[in-house]
Amino acid sequence: MIKERLEAIRKLMAKENISAYIIPTSDYHQSEYISEYFKCREYMSGFTGSAGTLVIGINEAALYTDGRYFIQATKELLGSGITLMKIGEEGVMDLLEYVENLLKDGGCLGFDAKYIDANFGIEVAKKIDIKSIDLVSPIWNDRPAMPYSKAFVLEEKYAGESVTSKLVKIREEMRKVDAKYHLVTSLCDIAWIYNIRANDVLHNPVLLAYTLITDDAAYLYTDESKLDFTIDGVTIRPYESIYEDVKKLSGKVMADIDSINYELYLGIDDLEARHNPSTILKAVKNETEIKNLYKAHIKDGVAVTKFIYWLKKNVKSDITEKMAAEHLENLRKEQKGYIEPSFETISAYGANAALMHYSIKDEVVLKNEGFLLVDSGGQYYEGTTDVTRTIALGVLNERMKECYTLVLKGMLSLSDAKFLYGCTGRNLDILARGPLWQNAIDYKCGTGHGVGYLLNVHEGPNGFRYKKPKDEYYDCVIEEGMVSSNEPGVYFEDEFGIRIENEIIAKKHIKNEYGQFMAFETLTLVPFDLDAIDYSLLSKKEIDMINKYHKRVYDELSPFLLEEEKEWLLAMVDGEQGKWMNVL
Amino acid sequence: MIKERLEAIRKLMAKENISAYIIPTSDYHQSEYISEYFKCREYMSGFTGSAGTLVIGINEAALYTDGRYFIQATKELLGSGITLMKIGEEGVMDLLEYVENLLKDGGCLGFDAKYIDANFGIEVAKKIDIKSIDLVSPIWNDRPAMPYSKAFVLEEKYAGESVTSKLVKIREEMRKVDAKYHLVTSLCDIAWIYNIRANDVLHNPVLLAYTLITDDAAYLYTDESKLDFTIDGVTIRPYESIYEDVKKLSGKVMADIDSINYELYLGIDDLEARHNPSTILKAVKNETEIKNLYKAHIKDGVAVTKFIYWLKKNVKSDITEKMAAEHLENLRKEQKGYIEPSFETISAYGANAALMHYSIKDEVVLKNEGFLLVDSGGQYYEGTTDVTRTIALGVLNERMKECYTLVLKGMLSLSDAKFLYGCTGRNLDILARGPLWQNAIDYKCGTGHGVGYLLNVHEGPNGFRYKKPKDEYYDCVIEEGMVSSNEPGVYFEDEFGIRIENEIIAKKHIKNEYGQFMAFETLTLVPFDLDAIDYSLLSKKEIDMINKYHKRVYDELSPFLLEEEKEWLLAMVDGEQGKWMNVL
Repeated sequence: MIKERLEAIRKLMAKENISAYIIPTSDYHQSEYISEYFKCREYMSGFTGSAGTLVIGINEAALYTDGRYFIQATKELLGSGITLMKIGEEGVMDLLEYVENLLKDGGCLGFDAKYIDANFGIEVAKKIDIKSIDLVSPIWNDRPAMPYSKAFVLEEKYAGESVTSKLVKIREEMRKVDAKYHLVTSLCDIAWIYNIRANDVLHNPVLLAYTLITDDAAYLYTDESKLDFTIDGVTIRPYESIYEDVKKLSGKVMADIDSINYELYLGIDDLEARHNPSTILKAVKNETEIKNLYKAHIKDGVAVTKFIYWLKKNVKSDITEKMAAEHLENLRKEQKGYIEPSFETISAYGANAALMHYSIKDEVVLKNEGFLLVDSGGQYYEGTTDVTRTIALGVLNERMKECYTLVLKGMLSLSDAKFLYGCTGRNLDILARGPLWQNAIDYKCGTGHGVGYLLNVHEGPNGFRYKKPKDEYYDCVIEEGMVSSNEPGVYFEDEFGIRIENEIIAKKHIKNEYGQFMAFETLTLVPFDLDAIDYSLLSKKEIDMINKYHKRVYDELSPFLLEEEKEWLLAMVDGEQGKWMNVL
Repeated sequence: MIKERLEAIRKLMAKENISAYIIPTSDYHQSEYISEYFKCREYMSGFTGSAGTLVIGINEAALYTDGRYFIQATKELLGSGITLMKIGEEGVMDLLEYVENLLKDGGCLGFDAKYIDANFGIEVAKKIDIKSIDLVSPIWNDRPAMPYSKAFVLEEKYAGESVTSKLVKIREEMRKVDAKYHLVTSLCDIAWIYNIRANDVLHNPVLLAYTLITDDAAYLYTDESKLDFTIDGVTIRPYESIYEDVKKLSGKVMADIDSINYELYLGIDDLEARHNPSTILKAVKNETEIKNLYKAHIKDGVAVTKFIYWLKKNVKSDITEKMAAEHLENLRKEQKGYIEPSFETISAYGANAALMHYSIKDEVVLKNEGFLLVDSGGQYYEGTTDVTRTIALGVLNERMKECYTLVLKGMLSLSDAKFLYGCTGRNLDILARGPLWQNAIDYKCGTGHGVGYLLNVHEGPNGFRYKKPKDEYYDCVIEEGMVSSNEPGVYFEDEFGIRIENEIIAKKHIKNEYGQFMAFETLTLVPFDLDAIDYSLLSKKEIDMINKYHKRVYDELSPFLLEEEKEWLLAMVDGEQGKWMNVL
């Protein structure tokens, strides 16, 4: 089947004198999650992973993907004639080199520039003749429809700021660089600016749209039938007409070159490349959003805490990874204002948890030993949540307890940071990583990412990382009101995985002759697993922190818990488990 | 007297149509310490501080200096007619603005471009007509001679690498940017490249020189009579002739725009602005240098440890801050291979220690209470040292003990850091600052600086800071062999000051699937003050670290101590003081 599709596209390529055709994993908006309509790479290759680029030549084809998908891709590409190119492995030809090789006997490189990010397009066009053309649509007969969902207004009691006010701030930034137009294509920015949400992308409650803002007007390019309301000062234009409209603009156009696609880039005459002002504006949560976030985290905490109690009681009853995730989802659904998961739940038992991007396997049954790692989150009207708990299902060995405790120490240390205003995530990352680094253990990812408000669970620019980012923008100063995840972990292949994740919000702390000190407040309200702690590794201060946190979790959640759940939670607080009292 | 000098220079200014004349604190090499010959600003203003810029107008004059010198400058400028401009205070006119004001009725700005750093010159020349001319020499009749000292070869048993080998590495860097010439004007770089030392600058054992390196030749511009030896492959040229020679160069000249003076900048046709490759090369100490550094720190440790013992025994004997510093200097002089202090010793009692850049006052007598802060270092053939100890002279209040302990905790935490290769000082700074930040205390400076090898005690680019530097170069990756100071502190105005400083050297630690872990080894060997510690604030791990460190100090130093000194030191190690055993 894949072979036939490749044959069909090759016929079209030959007609257009295209010797290599690139199909990346993308929609027109560089979204993290891709709707069915946009899954061209999957359709043409058979590979279902969430990352990868297909390059089709006249006589050969290759799929580039990373370490997360080597096993899956090998399986799925079998018999397709497509070669798997393992990114990061030695001796693997660079993608551009591979393309140049395909072009060595002439012809040009083809792709649909709407799927191509502008930076890549600019880079390639320097060296190679390119032709932008959509060769997938003509052969994809049963292609799914474009995402279609009804949009809704996020009322000001949730959003906390009017569209008018947001546009005023954006226009201020436009004036600073003398921009006549501001083009925004990132869907979460558009949803934030116009206080609208929809369901066009899985897990991200956004509307498929572009927007063009001028000093006195704003144009929203989207399917008008999705909107049963009007937005003050905003004109609706057809979704696709942005491409023609952009070409007609005369004057400076401010746009984020990291998020616009190459087709739009080519249409802009006078580009002022800037990150969207809305990105940093929406990263700083306003008072209303913060007040709501507390509510969302109580709801989410109730669901996850009930889940942990249920799991601990029922682990002997043939529960699978998938059943666990479904039970958690059902508990979230019981919460008023819950909309959908904020990402695909990771429910990974034993060695499966060592894979950072594990997908649930239906057949894995939990046993009365080791850890279940559950990373999940919800979209609520009151905000987006993201929480990970690693739960002891029974017997743990010493190494597991040691690692759980080291991860917890790091998580607590970062949450407890006090720092002068001006610090960035790079300054603080070592607080989370330190206890692991002391033991020559690392996790090969950042410590935390920004979190949206009823928007993307991964939201820039704030976060915690120790490496210098390519773009300084992502090493931004931590502002009051920024929400980030704090999620150190341990991943031992074929053994076990541990991650503990709380969301934390930056707050102003003491101001004195040294300046403005900052601190974090923890939003997430879910107990840690006392059964998994080697408390000989904890300081008195850390034990105090855990006890105080559990007291707060109990106080906030107990009104919504059953008697038996309350008792179980209270035992953690008043030290009935005994060990806490002994240490204190 | 100052008035007469100003009158004299104003006559010369009038003749040259100069309405404002700038005299900065500098020599031709942007050195940290200025020789007598170069103290033009002091001669023309009467102000003796180590930082400040004098601007002379036809009818007025102003001295710009920073907070360290407001009191001193007010006193010294009395009756000179020069206005003190307090940098950083509100309402103080910016220096360039002041200059523009002086020029508003015509005329140009004058300065001797050899004293002006290139970046400043470039900036000013964009807006203002300038004339480079030396107006100080003609009126400074009794001007001291240019610094004159005999240079000596730093033998390979100390330097660890030949000049030839160093030139090979530098030329490699030149080729990378297609530079035909490399101009170096920073004196420590020149001393390092040619394995020569001299005594032309106080505390910095360097030779006044410039150098020009080509692919097959090297020219050292200096007073030939200072050298009683030749250097393989190096031609000596007269010191001042660099200015003429530079103008004749045709081809790309690689030079560090942050260290060359404006006169040289103007002479270069085709500048490739790069930091001197020698700067990073010399920051990474070689095996021989490291072996020697251990020796230097034993010697230095013996002197400082003897000093602390003496001070503790004799504090009731009318010792002044100055006498203490002199005694320490005498103890260093007893060490073989000691050359001179690596900077002016700070010996600050009580509230004086709250001033970070305090100069010893002769009349301050130490009492049987509070702290004496002593920050000092030595130049040895085996390397440069820099160590601070804050010594309890008797009764301390609780706040003092708490702060001493917090500073010590931070110092120990940074010294104990384990981190993946790739980290910079910005990643680690919070380890030292953390315990103070937790208590809303900060110190308004970096945590540590790089240290030279028988060279400048402040040496870039490595160091520990939390703020983003203007130039990323100073946020460099910590390489094995880099030596830095680690010196957190507390400075409470009118109360007390505490600083504890060890030098630490970066080493490779464990290498595994996560990458290359790095760690520090402590070079400094001087006990902390157990009398000043509030041990209830220490963790078991920290107490272990202190005990292990004191054991090492005892083992390394005891062969060189008197019986009574050894006993005193041993008491810290085996816990005879009692309190340590209680905690353990």
